[in-house]
Amino acid sequence: MRSRLLTDHHGTRTFAVALVSGEPLMESITRFAAENGLAASEFTAIGAFASAKLALFDPDKKGYVDIPVEEQVELASLNGRITRPEGGEGEPHLHVHCVLSRRDGSAIAGHLLEAQGRPTAEVFITDSPTELHRRTDPESGLPALDPEFE
Amino acid sequence: MRSRLLTDHHGTRTFAVALVSGEPLMESITRFAAENGLAASEFTAIGAFASAKLALFDPDKKGYVDIPVEEQVELASLNGRITRPEGGEGEPHLHVHCVLSRRDGSAIAGHLLEAQGRPTAEVFITDSPTELHRRTDPESGLPALDPEFE
Amino acid sequence: MRSRLLTDHHGTRTFAVALVSGEPLMESITRFAAENGLAASEFTAIGAFASAKLALFDPDKKGYVDIPVEEQVELASLNGRITRPEGGEGEPHLHVHCVLSRRDGSAIAGHLLEAQGRPTAEVFITDSPTELHRRTDPESGLPALDPEFE
Repeated sequence: MRSRLLTDHHGTRTFAVALVSGEPLMESITRFAAENGLAASEFTAIGAFASAKLALFDPDKKGYVDIPVEEQVELASLNGRITRPEGGEGEPHLHVHCVLSRRDGSAIAGHLLEAQGRPTAEVFITDSPTELHRRTDPESGLPALDPEFE
Repeated sequence: MRSRLLTDHHGTRTFAVALVSGEPLMESITRFAAENGLAASEFTAIGAFASAKLALFDPDKKGYVDIPVEEQVELASLNGRITRPEGGEGEPHLHVHCVLSRRDGSAIAGHLLEAQGRPTAEVFITDSPTELHRRTDPESGLPALDPEFE
Repeated sequence: MRSRLLTDHHGTRTFAVALVSGEPLMESITRFAAENGLAASEFTAIGAFASAKLALFDPDKKGYVDIPVEEQVELASLNGRITRPEGGEGEPHLHVHCVLSRRDGSAIAGHLLEAQGRPTAEVFITDSPTELHRRTDPESGLPALDPEFE
């Protein structure tokens, strides 16, 4: 992973981050967030993956159904959020959705669990110093963003 | 809807907004834009919808063809713009495109007319104080963004 | 193409750009980047295209497979980056991925080579004054973003 701080305006920072081939996206960005003290980020990425694992939420089962993607795919769209763990202890929380495309251009999309960049993914992260947190949503059991939770 | 102002640099503001389950996205963001005096915003969202209505523009008919989505879907990508109505009267104008994914990961995408969050949609909005407006495009009949129109 | 500078904070600038019907997206944004001295930009766009050409990277062939799109499509998602050429000479480099949707809502996605707006594409560009460059990745032969390359 190679990175650069592009701007810093009163603590609102923008970073460019590029994965090297084979690097796992979720672990790499989580480590980057911890090392740089990210508090409330949104990020986008484009690039390509050697493989990935998506998930789709099933509200009846209150759980995710996994969809493995075992082929080279373009990363056509990716939007993510980084938040602080409750109480401030533990790893930053990433929430990432993306759209992938296969060799014929057909798209497959959902919640991203895992992905390996090949040859790379170009990530732009904007972080604000105002911390954001998640809380367990009682209906779905999911860690939902609660912007008013301090 | 729960929200927080993350940053404010000389009037350029970034907000985090989270829908609660069942809330309609278009109406909720329109109301939020009116209440906060948004002038020229771009926003992204990820999450999931209980249902949605998409539309595709048909240039021959100069109109939209509706595509109802009557199932739980992931909100894999959403990009929107908020502009001020001409003359300053009336509701803010939202223009939103998105990519949704069904239980098998297959994607359906287009212009968004309606959507109900379930369990939530996490929206990040950045607004600049420089107002943007739309004008009716004579060829298509659509309200096209005109950045040079004051 | 019509444009407006929305914000400028210590050289970090945000622009709104709208294509007029028939304008080519890649050439128009490249020219805009050159004229405005963009150094390290990320941008998004929504709108619709009269036609487009996508490409998918094939790591075995170390090359792109083209996918022509010969029909009116919605531009459901587009994320791009603009970087400076090595040595500072030559045109700005655009790297763009997008998701398009056909009349039935089905999605086709990948690396964007060409597209003609119809009726328009609404582009929001944020540029930082910290230059970013690309280097040829030896494994893939592609111009990969290297944030640490000065």
